[in-house]
Amino acid sequence: MRCLLHHPLQPQSRLIRLQLAEKRLDADLVVERPWDRRDELLMVNPAGEVPVLIEENGPTLCGFYPALEYLEEAYPDTAGAGAPLLGRSLQDRAEVRRLIGWFDGKFEREVTRNLLHEKIFKRFMPNAGGGPDSSAIRAGKANIATHLQYIAWLTERRAWLAGSALSLADLMAAAQLSAIDYLGDVPWDEHEGAKDWYARLKSRPSFRALLADNLPGAPPPPHYADLDF
Amino acid sequence: MRCLLHHPLQPQSRLIRLQLAEKRLDADLVVERPWDRRDELLMVNPAGEVPVLIEENGPTLCGFYPALEYLEEAYPDTAGAGAPLLGRSLQDRAEVRRLIGWFDGKFEREVTRNLLHEKIFKRFMPNAGGGPDSSAIRAGKANIATHLQYIAWLTERRAWLAGSALSLADLMAAAQLSAIDYLGDVPWDEHEGAKDWYARLKSRPSFRALLADNLPGAPPPPHYADLDF
Repeated sequence: MRCLLHHPLQPQSRLIRLQLAEKRLDADLVVERPWDRRDELLMVNPAGEVPVLIEENGPTLCGFYPALEYLEEAYPDTAGAGAPLLGRSLQDRAEVRRLIGWFDGKFEREVTRNLLHEKIFKRFMPNAGGGPDSSAIRAGKANIATHLQYIAWLTERRAWLAGSALSLADLMAAAQLSAIDYLGDVPWDEHEGAKDWYARLKSRPSFRALLADNLPGAPPPPHYADLDF
Repeated sequence: MRCLLHHPLQPQSRLIRLQLAEKRLDADLVVERPWDRRDELLMVNPAGEVPVLIEENGPTLCGFYPALEYLEEAYPDTAGAGAPLLGRSLQDRAEVRRLIGWFDGKFEREVTRNLLHEKIFKRFMPNAGGGPDSSAIRAGKANIATHLQYIAWLTERRAWLAGSALSLADLMAAAQLSAIDYLGDVPWDEHEGAKDWYARLKSRPSFRALLADNLPGAPPPPHYADLDF
């Protein structure tokens, strides 16, 4: 059996869980808190980061970028999506990877670090430098609006974020937003277009395991797992 | 002709220039200072980031990750390297992408942001928040040692960073280090192993254009372009 070292709320770990589930590939999940710098994690990934995907009798993929590209190369079929998750043509793949980069990079810097890092990760990390920074939290809450508007703008023009088919762009964006939604910080009701798109993703079987996540000492709000949110 | 919007000192732009040169693909280079938020840049990449690779009658690649994967898919041959720059087997590709992630992520956070951002980019950026932060610069200078040791450790065991052949892992690492070397902040003489590896890269024809870079108002130190440094 393959094994995934992950953190339940880290968006990049969530992406790989979604991608595995869309491909109906099983994995044993092992929770890592990277800030604990466990020897077993450092042995497989000297960067000390998650996700790490360990294939039985196969390669070890350190980081979400090696893991996502590997899964597309090794298991190109995705039964439920109807098309390759990275897109078929060079043009399609350019757009899927652009949006993966957008949500892994820009969204992460502008929203996730300001909210998830401040509110949750800092609590557990040694040497994190004090309590939550309220100005960072305000910035994160303000910045999320642009991204929700961008999702609405894209899905007014296309069925899914990168084109006519579900892709890794949708899974990456949903991985980020689901982590922020776990904090109760996504203003869905002010962004109907983004909400409609997220409702479609949330009802996919691949999403079920994420919606069952429950971090000890930091439970999600009631609407988090509700398909009619 | 294809066109590359880039910043001369940004490591991710440098990587794409090296990759194009290793593949002997020509491109018109257009310098962008992303912080100017030029309309022409925002029109092709709404994220406002470089590099952007624009193929004539082909896709536009926004960001180094879409661009590097595209170049490998569209132009798999790399005359001078003797092997695919991303590696041949799934195992090889896992290792190349792991190290791309290491130098794009970990090195960038621990070294590049502390040195390049503080010393150069902040000078030009509006709202950058004051002069260089001397504690960040000290941290960047301390952090670089671990990365140089890691390069030496890898190249004691392998001909190149990811294995027996030159790969994008070497080009990404060299793109980062060459930008820091432009500042004169790489202690080469304390790290012979890393210096030997860098000397091999520096003497490749693909490196020539980078060594000719000269930023107005911020010239490189004399050893920067010297092959016998």
